Amino acid sequence: MKNDTILLAHGSGGKLSRKLITELFMPHFTNEYISPLADAALIDGSDLWRHCEERSDAAISSSAVMTNKKLAFTTDSFVVKPIFFPGGDIGKLAVCGTTNDLAVMGAKPLYLSCGFVLEEGLLIDELHRILDSMAAEAEKNGVKIVTGDTKVVEKGSADKIFINTAGIGIRDNNRSFNEKIKPGDKVIINGTLGDHGIAVLSARENLAIGTPVLSDCASLWHMIDEVLESSNGVKFMRDPTRGGLATVLNEIVHGENFGILLHEDSIPVKEEVNAICELLGFDPLYLANEGKVVLIASEKEAGKIVSIMKKNEIGKDSRIIGEVAASPAGKVFMKTGIGGTRIVDMMIADQLPRIC
Amino acid sequence: MKNDTILLAHGSGGKLSRKLITELFMPHFTNEYISPLADAALIDGSDLWRHCEERSDAAISSSAVMTNKKLAFTTDSFVVKPIFFPGGDIGKLAVCGTTNDLAVMGAKPLYLSCGFVLEEGLLIDELHRILDSMAAEAEKNGVKIVTGDTKVVEKGSADKIFINTAGIGIRDNNRSFNEKIKPGDKVIINGTLGDHGIAVLSARENLAIGTPVLSDCASLWHMIDEVLESSNGVKFMRDPTRGGLATVLNEIVHGENFGILLHEDSIPVKEEVNAICELLGFDPLYLANEGKVVLIASEKEAGKIVSIMKKNEIGKDSRIIGEVAASPAGKVFMKTGIGGTRIVDMMIADQLPRIC
Repeated sequence: MKNDTILLAHGSGGKLSRKLITELFMPHFTNEYISPLADAALIDGSDLWRHCEERSDAAISSSAVMTNKKLAFTTDSFVVKPIFFPGGDIGKLAVCGTTNDLAVMGAKPLYLSCGFVLEEGLLIDELHRILDSMAAEAEKNGVKIVTGDTKVVEKGSADKIFINTAGIGIRDNNRSFNEKIKPGDKVIINGTLGDHGIAVLSARENLAIGTPVLSDCASLWHMIDEVLESSNGVKFMRDPTRGGLATVLNEIVHGENFGILLHEDSIPVKEEVNAICELLGFDPLYLANEGKVVLIASEKEAGKIVSIMKKNEIGKDSRIIGEVAASPAGKVFMKTGIGGTRIVDMMIADQLPRIC
Repeated sequence: MKNDTILLAHGSGGKLSRKLITELFMPHFTNEYISPLADAALIDGSDLWRHCEERSDAAISSSAVMTNKKLAFTTDSFVVKPIFFPGGDIGKLAVCGTTNDLAVMGAKPLYLSCGFVLEEGLLIDELHRILDSMAAEAEKNGVKIVTGDTKVVEKGSADKIFINTAGIGIRDNNRSFNEKIKPGDKVIINGTLGDHGIAVLSARENLAIGTPVLSDCASLWHMIDEVLESSNGVKFMRDPTRGGLATVLNEIVHGENFGILLHEDSIPVKEEVNAICELLGFDPLYLANEGKVVLIASEKEAGKIVSIMKKNEIGKDSRIIGEVAASPAGKVFMKTGIGGTRIVDMMIADQLPRIC
């Protein structure tokens, strides 16, 4: 351990990332709120205010308002390379990424902080464009950027710009989704896989592609809000970013007494994305997405949820792509187009570092 | 503008930092909560919960609990070089810095997020030590680290480790300090200036110093809490980090119809710090501190506040170092030891980059 070092793969979202988090970070930070797998911490409204009441002159009873809400709190750092790519930039990503982490916890995104680490020599014009994107995406989301910080480091000590956004949202407890996942539940996705990964890769490597693939970078809240408003069938949500769909599904089944069966034929992947994947040996199941949500929904509600999602621009390609199965437990497997079945394992390292 | 670039001085906390924030960042992010000078955004409790009530089945009246509190939200990125220095490390700094930003707003620090950007090749053993410091300082503060994120970038794309912490705190409205600053008010500091700056500099440059100067890196909440509990005389608080005491005081008087007069003889500076400053041409007024708070207090309460602060280990050297004066308005000036008066201006660039 003494001379062990951090590897790129520790940031991949795969097995080494999980090892870093569970073996290194978690032992240091243990409390009732932190969870290695959740996208945001959920804090009881009553816990939050209690801290001031100890000193309050008047005795104030907990009201329904406080006990019925949870504050959601999340953070994400963005180091994507290059900082501009087809369909977005690091600024748009920094707003979408963090608000989406709140949204998949069922929380309405409200407030963002942003911390910038700038490399000496960054063009101020580029910074302007990035701030423009952030402001536009925040506006679209109805979130406010309320506090910030800027540090500058010498040329060569960072790579142009890193952005951290932390986010606060509110979740109404009657929108929590704690029902147990069980065989028969459906797996839903709101559109094509891997667009963000391929968009960033093509910009990074200057790939000459006939039709450029645009990143799917988008804010999920409005669509998720509509789903939660109309259905109580959602059991789990997650945005499949680093590590892609395969990683999220493996996290869901890990240590559980159920597995997940995907149907290759129903998994939407753009032709251009498939072509580049085949050329370069990537698998779209592991590529990053930035405007996608995977839902596990009850069998009964799944169809209704898909039709609600389809009404939204970012959900128009929504569909059921698989289901929860009793066996093999703890595994994700896939019925391939030619009729076989293969295991979709957790990857060890990322196919593409610095994707977000 | 087109080819203007970010300079190290944009991160200094001085004039160029202010220009960057007011001319570049603020025009993009305008809302009722953001303020270029505050250390944290304050969000009304009632604003926070309102977002869920729109959908609530029952009509819930705003209770005193909600309208009497404000949520404080802040963020800070830490890029200090080197990551270990006498008296602390980047982890301790990341917890103290953000909780102190909440504390000086009068808010009790409660929850922290942490976002790590790790450079490939960082020793895992070093990361362990940093996490240990973070956990210990959080424990001491009574704050919980509840959510996190880790990114890894290639060797040469960052400098070992950058940490962002965002923090949430709660402020009771009966502890707000909005009373106008006016001539006669006193300026208070809780101890010696420049220790952090010199500690980091000496570690960075391997200065051979007789008595090593330790960083003052410490959490201010408990001392501030005691002051606010016993006195309503506080009109302003700020931690003089980047840019030091001179920068904070210049921000206070900027555009106001009052100035501040400091008494050089009463400003506490360690002998070793003074010696190094004289040798290298630094001014302790501009050096960074990480466990200091500047208070502006009413003339009537100032003595009492100092004696409350003195009871605390980090406040034992507290004292009045100056006062608010009617003229020259908008300026900070100082009565020097030899009887003259000099202007203490806002610096343009930092004396020491990457100090926090």
